[in-house]
Amino acid sequence: MTQQAGKPGETGADALCDTLLANGVDVCFANPGTSEMHFVAALDRKQQMRCVLGLFEGVVTGAADGYARMAGKPAATLLHTGPGLANALANMHNARRANTPMVNVVGDHASYHLPYDAPLTSDIESLARPMSGHVRRIGSAADVSAATAESIAAASRAPGCVSTLILPADYAWGSAPQVAPVKAEVRAPAAADPGRVAAASKALKNGKKTVVLLSGTALRATALETAQAIADATGATLMAQQSNGRMERGAGRVQINRVPYPVDQAIKALEGFEQIILVGAKFPVIFFGYPGKPSTPVPEGCERITLADPSDDLPGALEALASEVGAGRPTLTTAPAIPDLTTGKLTPEAIAITLGHKLPENAIVCDESVTSGRDFFRFTFGSAPHDWLQVTGGAIGGGMPLATGAALACPDRKVINLQADGSAMYTNQALWTMAREELDICVVIFANRRYAILQGELKGVGAGEPGRNAQRMLDLDKPALDFVQIAKGMGVDAARAETAEGFTDLFERAMKTTGPFLIEAVI
Amino acid sequence: MTQQAGKPGETGADALCDTLLANGVDVCFANPGTSEMHFVAALDRKQQMRCVLGLFEGVVTGAADGYARMAGKPAATLLHTGPGLANALANMHNARRANTPMVNVVGDHASYHLPYDAPLTSDIESLARPMSGHVRRIGSAADVSAATAESIAAASRAPGCVSTLILPADYAWGSAPQVAPVKAEVRAPAAADPGRVAAASKALKNGKKTVVLLSGTALRATALETAQAIADATGATLMAQQSNGRMERGAGRVQINRVPYPVDQAIKALEGFEQIILVGAKFPVIFFGYPGKPSTPVPEGCERITLADPSDDLPGALEALASEVGAGRPTLTTAPAIPDLTTGKLTPEAIAITLGHKLPENAIVCDESVTSGRDFFRFTFGSAPHDWLQVTGGAIGGGMPLATGAALACPDRKVINLQADGSAMYTNQALWTMAREELDICVVIFANRRYAILQGELKGVGAGEPGRNAQRMLDLDKPALDFVQIAKGMGVDAARAETAEGFTDLFERAMKTTGPFLIEAVI
Repeated sequence: MTQQAGKPGETGADALCDTLLANGVDVCFANPGTSEMHFVAALDRKQQMRCVLGLFEGVVTGAADGYARMAGKPAATLLHTGPGLANALANMHNARRANTPMVNVVGDHASYHLPYDAPLTSDIESLARPMSGHVRRIGSAADVSAATAESIAAASRAPGCVSTLILPADYAWGSAPQVAPVKAEVRAPAAADPGRVAAASKALKNGKKTVVLLSGTALRATALETAQAIADATGATLMAQQSNGRMERGAGRVQINRVPYPVDQAIKALEGFEQIILVGAKFPVIFFGYPGKPSTPVPEGCERITLADPSDDLPGALEALASEVGAGRPTLTTAPAIPDLTTGKLTPEAIAITLGHKLPENAIVCDESVTSGRDFFRFTFGSAPHDWLQVTGGAIGGGMPLATGAALACPDRKVINLQADGSAMYTNQALWTMAREELDICVVIFANRRYAILQGELKGVGAGEPGRNAQRMLDLDKPALDFVQIAKGMGVDAARAETAEGFTDLFERAMKTTGPFLIEAVI
Repeated sequence: MTQQAGKPGETGADALCDTLLANGVDVCFANPGTSEMHFVAALDRKQQMRCVLGLFEGVVTGAADGYARMAGKPAATLLHTGPGLANALANMHNARRANTPMVNVVGDHASYHLPYDAPLTSDIESLARPMSGHVRRIGSAADVSAATAESIAAASRAPGCVSTLILPADYAWGSAPQVAPVKAEVRAPAAADPGRVAAASKALKNGKKTVVLLSGTALRATALETAQAIADATGATLMAQQSNGRMERGAGRVQINRVPYPVDQAIKALEGFEQIILVGAKFPVIFFGYPGKPSTPVPEGCERITLADPSDDLPGALEALASEVGAGRPTLTTAPAIPDLTTGKLTPEAIAITLGHKLPENAIVCDESVTSGRDFFRFTFGSAPHDWLQVTGGAIGGGMPLATGAALACPDRKVINLQADGSAMYTNQALWTMAREELDICVVIFANRRYAILQGELKGVGAGEPGRNAQRMLDLDKPALDFVQIAKGMGVDAARAETAEGFTDLFERAMKTTGPFLIEAVI
């Protein structure tokens, strides 16, 4: 079969673009291939669509994640067949764990070409499902608009999900004239459940030691104030989930710690609690299983109470609970003083102190610092108000793409990417997109020149001193990565800091100028 | 549950390593994570195992592909949970299309930890299946050796396949004492089928215009001579599949063309043939479907005859056929003279001519030159004998990892990687592994600073001149990638060529020295 193409402007691909735009999706992160050329041609006819090229698909979906976390609406992505989707999956996984809305458009072979098993053919659905909340294959050119609207609706439904739409090439090029773009029916977050509110309120008054675990929109400034008022009124402790999509924090805002990553610290942090109230958070779980250690840091016998699911109106649920427990105005404690700037040896702590002092107002911090940054919260409680975005799914390579997308969503805000060196390499191509789009991002590379997290884990295994094979799998020296050259090679200006004062100088300079800049902090 | 760890040397992970080694698998390309720490510790106890770190999983599986194509046996890979596997899939896809044997070990959470849905949890089987011929989840520490042997056997069975073995962390750390490593039962290629040989022989004598399409081991030097003898005796035309895992060619060997990639050229190449005889090759198919064009370049009514499947003994089948048609000694035609070296403007053709003259004896060419290299065969028929490896599945980013693995398998041979710039970026981290392992590779970057293949395809769509959105998705300038800096940033020496004579000088220099070197050829 050799189906003919529709007229430019009247193809399935045009219907797809029109439907995206009609539903407010006007940014498309893209890494196209041949099967998407009619989609590219259609995008080219829509001046309202902002198309952003990533040189690797992990950049594309990671940027879509960062964009949506800050813009509060999904971006589209354009991916090329099964292998292109495969490269995109790790950051789709992170987005899935952050409940980020995202609409991935994956081009596939023309429907009649699939049985020929051409080289790029693969089972796209099987690849997409583990990292998508919604998967749909478009069934005809006439089906494009309805399928796209369904995909946007699924992505946008609270709390948000990764939606994957498979676009066979012949339905992209096929004729779909005079299709009115279908509006997506977006379901709003569910209102607080009075029974749950009553149960949580009752629990908070029973005298037991209680932790309120928050995530999602419960970590925005106003919701956190409501939570603080509840804590003030009831004596409960507030804590954030270990990893969160977005958290509003800094001077004048509620100070809240996360459940720590290391298993022993997590157990200690939750020790003695008799009740845990979940507000959009998952029940705490240890990141990995370890011999002789539990899977959850929550003490045995601790009662679990759910105030609200991630799909609920979390600020509303907190307000209802505050009213039920008779909470008043929250008390905002003064943030601990940030230690004085240091000089000499450059350490993660020295960097944290500089950040604490120098974070600009309204900054967006995208954190993939892994081991180096675990202790950064305590130095930045008193910093100028800012957003803190984490890599939520544990898939490495989220940080730089996340910063890319956040900067696109918020062109007037400074983005600071705290980036471990090992992790940076997985999606280093993000640097080029930062340069191409002239994004206002300062990338701080924590160059410890090893997989420090794994060296710690290997010690935990009790394997003794690492031998040649272990060293060669966990060290990143020989040769050392030169991030200054790598960044410049992709068009991003960069410099190296080897002392605390050198780092502070470079960081201050980066905060005063706009555009992408990378600091390789040798620690 | 908190299962205890076995004694070092007696764990499931030790059994895994011992089983790999007992079956001749002694190279492990790795990108480990926390859930694989006991596997890393076990590898550390096995000095016979060569562990090679890749800073991104696409490097790991692409290198395993290149290694196995040249070594003729599988390497193991070490990948970290679902997202790590996801990053590895694109080059597993290429390996699958080359029928490359590969044993992927994917670490997963401890079995009892999975129900907790920790952040890195995902459906690994669903991700693995599309790009694997065999998937197995290990069921206990005691099961490790049998499962590993099964995985090696599946990978090694002719013609080879990608095998994925999922290793839950508790079965890696669990006790598996005194396990004798299970030997993999490897099935040899099937002998030629006499009925098929007779049918092919009959067809070759019926006077119809016939093309014999070869792939797999039918493209090794001796098998090609047998095929040439058949062609001499019967008047048939020899042709290679469009994309092949490995082809032995150069001066003194049979000259054979591939089915061209562009649809119109492919149709022209196969025009007029009344019969097609497949020898380990797939029936030709166009890479992508296009409006108004067929899915196969084979003329309608052309009869399809299969002499041998990829899993058969292809050289044996050719010999049987040669005997049946009464073939004699093959005539080896003299290769066309390579044009004189050029000066001035650096073009793909100028590079091809330099290659033609300067390819060293026994070189291994790993080709991901995409548009730039489509015409390179005709300049290299008369070059010193060499192997030519292609990216077989159309998944971008195969070239540099392939070169990495081939160089590891053949430390005494020069590897030349012909690499498109856009494609190079997907797995640029391979450069670091080349430097770390001091591999003898010359990477030639075809820096046309655009996705040339897609610009061609966009023209074919009839979309007219590309506008802003299309340009921003298909151009790689603004900023231009500086591959010299990118390479140096990863420890690989590099230089830029902007004239034909400049390229020849750099290429000659690279051929005379050993170790990795990158030439950015600005074309």
